[in-house]
Amino acid sequence: MALHFSMFLPTLLGQASPEQQEKWVPRAVNMEIIGTYAQTELGHGTFLRGLETTATYDPNTEEFVLNSPTLTAYKWWPGGLAHTANHCVVVAQLHSKGVNHGVHPFIVQIRDEDTHMPLPGVKVGEIGPKLSFSTANNGFLGFDNFRVPRDSMLMKNAQVLKDGTYVKSRLSKLTYGTMVFIRVMIVTDMAYYLSVGATIAIRYSAVRHQSKPKENEPEPQILDYVTQQHKLFIALASSHAFRVTGQWLWTTFVRVNKALTSGNADTLPELHAVACCLKAVTTRDAASMVEACRMSCGGHGYMTSSYLPILYGITTAACTYEGENTVLLLQTARSLVKAWQKGSKGKPLSPTEAYLMDKSPVPKWENTLDGIIAGFRRVSAGKVQDCVSKIDKLVKMGTSYEDAWNQTSVRLVAASEAHSRAVILATFRAEVSRAAAALSPPLARVLHQLVHLYTVYWALERVGDLLLYTSIAERDVQELQQQYEDLLQKIRPNTVGLVDAFDLRDEILNSTLGAYDGRVYERLMEEALKSPLNAEPVNQSFHKYLKPFMQGKL
Amino acid sequence: MALHFSMFLPTLLGQASPEQQEKWVPRAVNMEIIGTYAQTELGHGTFLRGLETTATYDPNTEEFVLNSPTLTAYKWWPGGLAHTANHCVVVAQLHSKGVNHGVHPFIVQIRDEDTHMPLPGVKVGEIGPKLSFSTANNGFLGFDNFRVPRDSMLMKNAQVLKDGTYVKSRLSKLTYGTMVFIRVMIVTDMAYYLSVGATIAIRYSAVRHQSKPKENEPEPQILDYVTQQHKLFIALASSHAFRVTGQWLWTTFVRVNKALTSGNADTLPELHAVACCLKAVTTRDAASMVEACRMSCGGHGYMTSSYLPILYGITTAACTYEGENTVLLLQTARSLVKAWQKGSKGKPLSPTEAYLMDKSPVPKWENTLDGIIAGFRRVSAGKVQDCVSKIDKLVKMGTSYEDAWNQTSVRLVAASEAHSRAVILATFRAEVSRAAAALSPPLARVLHQLVHLYTVYWALERVGDLLLYTSIAERDVQELQQQYEDLLQKIRPNTVGLVDAFDLRDEILNSTLGAYDGRVYERLMEEALKSPLNAEPVNQSFHKYLKPFMQGKL
Repeated sequence: MALHFSMFLPTLLGQASPEQQEKWVPRAVNMEIIGTYAQTELGHGTFLRGLETTATYDPNTEEFVLNSPTLTAYKWWPGGLAHTANHCVVVAQLHSKGVNHGVHPFIVQIRDEDTHMPLPGVKVGEIGPKLSFSTANNGFLGFDNFRVPRDSMLMKNAQVLKDGTYVKSRLSKLTYGTMVFIRVMIVTDMAYYLSVGATIAIRYSAVRHQSKPKENEPEPQILDYVTQQHKLFIALASSHAFRVTGQWLWTTFVRVNKALTSGNADTLPELHAVACCLKAVTTRDAASMVEACRMSCGGHGYMTSSYLPILYGITTAACTYEGENTVLLLQTARSLVKAWQKGSKGKPLSPTEAYLMDKSPVPKWENTLDGIIAGFRRVSAGKVQDCVSKIDKLVKMGTSYEDAWNQTSVRLVAASEAHSRAVILATFRAEVSRAAAALSPPLARVLHQLVHLYTVYWALERVGDLLLYTSIAERDVQELQQQYEDLLQKIRPNTVGLVDAFDLRDEILNSTLGAYDGRVYERLMEEALKSPLNAEPVNQSFHKYLKPFMQGKL
Repeated sequence: MALHFSMFLPTLLGQASPEQQEKWVPRAVNMEIIGTYAQTELGHGTFLRGLETTATYDPNTEEFVLNSPTLTAYKWWPGGLAHTANHCVVVAQLHSKGVNHGVHPFIVQIRDEDTHMPLPGVKVGEIGPKLSFSTANNGFLGFDNFRVPRDSMLMKNAQVLKDGTYVKSRLSKLTYGTMVFIRVMIVTDMAYYLSVGATIAIRYSAVRHQSKPKENEPEPQILDYVTQQHKLFIALASSHAFRVTGQWLWTTFVRVNKALTSGNADTLPELHAVACCLKAVTTRDAASMVEACRMSCGGHGYMTSSYLPILYGITTAACTYEGENTVLLLQTARSLVKAWQKGSKGKPLSPTEAYLMDKSPVPKWENTLDGIIAGFRRVSAGKVQDCVSKIDKLVKMGTSYEDAWNQTSVRLVAASEAHSRAVILATFRAEVSRAAAALSPPLARVLHQLVHLYTVYWALERVGDLLLYTSIAERDVQELQQQYEDLLQKIRPNTVGLVDAFDLRDEILNSTLGAYDGRVYERLMEEALKSPLNAEPVNQSFHKYLKPFMQGKL
């Protein structure tokens, strides 16, 4: 039902006319019909304009003819489509009076409401096994000149009249809204997935003992190895950083949306730009940190019963869905380059990009939170400037802008990522400082330690950029490294408490390694014994294959 | 049968006495018995001394009593153990006359040869689902005071006499040999996995078209996007780098092993040190680059039918098995620190570590292959020196050596990785240059481009280290970035040819995205239609759950 509620219903609410909403929304809310959202095709995902499914208006019968002219036009991936949904929002190229008006949404019944049989002209099925999301029932969908009534087109914005006249939407930017909404949500999802990964791996690391660095002492908890802390504490800190950033992004979204509904779309591009890069960076970090959590549990992290392989599958999927990360980073880069050009002409920039035009001389480096954040802004601005220079140079040499952009794209992605880091670092610091006033001093201290750890971690990860674009010196780097190691020691005593504070129930964690009571080994064995392969002491494969094989009879 | 031939049989050949070999080897070779190797336990992996399974000698019956005193003593993970093997090498703590002599290998029958039933006193089963390796039939194994004859102990080296007298092995370092052998093999495995990942992703990127940067031109192959090249070409180059490094390591291994058998173990520590860090770095790089290949295929890379999720599961497992990567990097670091201390006292160092003592002034930076390789050696030496300084400082302040080591371990891992990079870069360059003499000039040129790409890629990835430890300047970095982008352009026309040259059959690739004929979309659909969920147009779940649910009857 996830797609029914997160995509099908919101699309009806956002894109259907009042009459259409009256017809469809109550049935959807009552789950008399179950829907999903079919946009991506076998041949096209991110590039919407490339979709091939057609909806051709026939004024004689006042119907649209839905068709999949090629194999690559088949819808591919929609969750719940394979066997659950009997209705579907289908995104298709709208043709009327011989003109293609681009992609538009249609509500389409695909299965009989009583028998659930696919309707004639509809080819629907399941796409096969995936890395994770085994329960998502992802489907494919093709149409063979399948006719639907005119009012299947969702007509809140654009419309096709009875005679086939196309009436354009007044606010084309409105459709951005849903896409941005989902990306805003994803940042908070990543905070959640990281809290799950950190909880499992940190609890396991408190239970697991290994090796004997000191011959006369017992094996230490692996959580006491500094290399283990280095893998895990950043996941913990990142979960908080992303939660705070997600909240800030949500507040921004609400403000922009309010302006939008009163007809003002001025702040939408900035929101779009920042949501793109934050979605990309938080999903990538979450995936790689969840994977680091998994690997920090050694072989046991490889067991499905640890939940960590599934969690990685879910998290890494977010790097691809709802806008592939590299494409999104390049979208933000486009905004940054535009801002740079605007700023160079003396025009004012939006708040999150204003720092690009800071023309003050490079300040003396300071190993403080503010110093590091200012440093990251210098890095981002410096990288954007490099990109603009390279593009200009190539264009002057006769390269087309598009080719120049492509040839600069590795750097543009890096610039976009640097911008994103600056935004997250600044937001995490500002929001925690603001919230800390209302907290008990010990709690505020621990949260500040996490902010500090997070900031220093990224300074060390991007030390090359800081050395290139700021006045940081070798001794500053050495001091940061020492600060980082001191922070690991300071945070260690509170680590288990910090993951307990996420307050995730065992049923939610669903992990042999991460349960609150720490019965790791007992749970591993209990889960193993549930394997169907343990139902009989001798598996039938012995009689069928192994014995004849050993006797040379195969 | 993989473990039977790669671990069970080699252990018999390496650890059994001549009489034992006579008894067991022909039966194993003829597959009258099938064996595996049971070392890792639920509670202990890397730390061998911590294993809990006991083998206590009983001189009255001349038997060993095998026992699993705790749940954590259960063997866990051995491939083929669950249902295939009827024999097993078991590694256990040897007790005789009240003394623990440490871990030793035993050959143990665990199932009846005729009925395949587990023998009384043996608890054997399957450990449940994992991230990948679904066919490995990994098992658990526990013993309840299970008696085996005295000659079950593999006695080529150490022995227990009839009266229980323990006779020590003469060459304790011999057991190192097998472990090192497997790590040497892994480097070459990683070259292979990367060739598979690169082949699939590059072929798909040649078939897939997406977006319209230029309105009047068709959608380009995604392989023409420079960001895509950035993700893929390094995987291609790394496959060659690891193959060459693996060959070099194998030659070294053969030489060291020859010396060993004539009683000279002097060169073993160096081989051990370099095999540890190369295993760690090549597995980590291979896993992250295979994953980058997967993600470069967008949503389709998430489909199991692309083979990429399985390939990632197999590759990332290598980061954990046969010595967890962080532990291995720290073992190499221990060798580097020792070498530094030896070198500081003027003693000669082994060939791969000799550069640590290069006391010449930092040379003028050169943006050449040799300049970059020399730079990486400077980085490694500088990091080792930093570690030694920090450890010394902490010890002088009263910290124990073990705690000082732990507190320095994040830096020690980095030093070890830097050493490894220097070794791979130097080996790749030297071996390709040597081989190039016998190649046609165009082929030699392409291979040199791959060496060049690989070297510049890592220089840019580790630019912070180079800025800290060498005389590289900002303009050098800019030039390297430009060199890198030029190399992507130069390599692009040969990319498909380069993966075709890996000559991997479609049956081996087993991928909808990577087949030689490029029928990507047809294969995706063909595979989807094989899903059991597509056997009927209406799945039984509709009648059982969905319809009652929609009618409010659930």
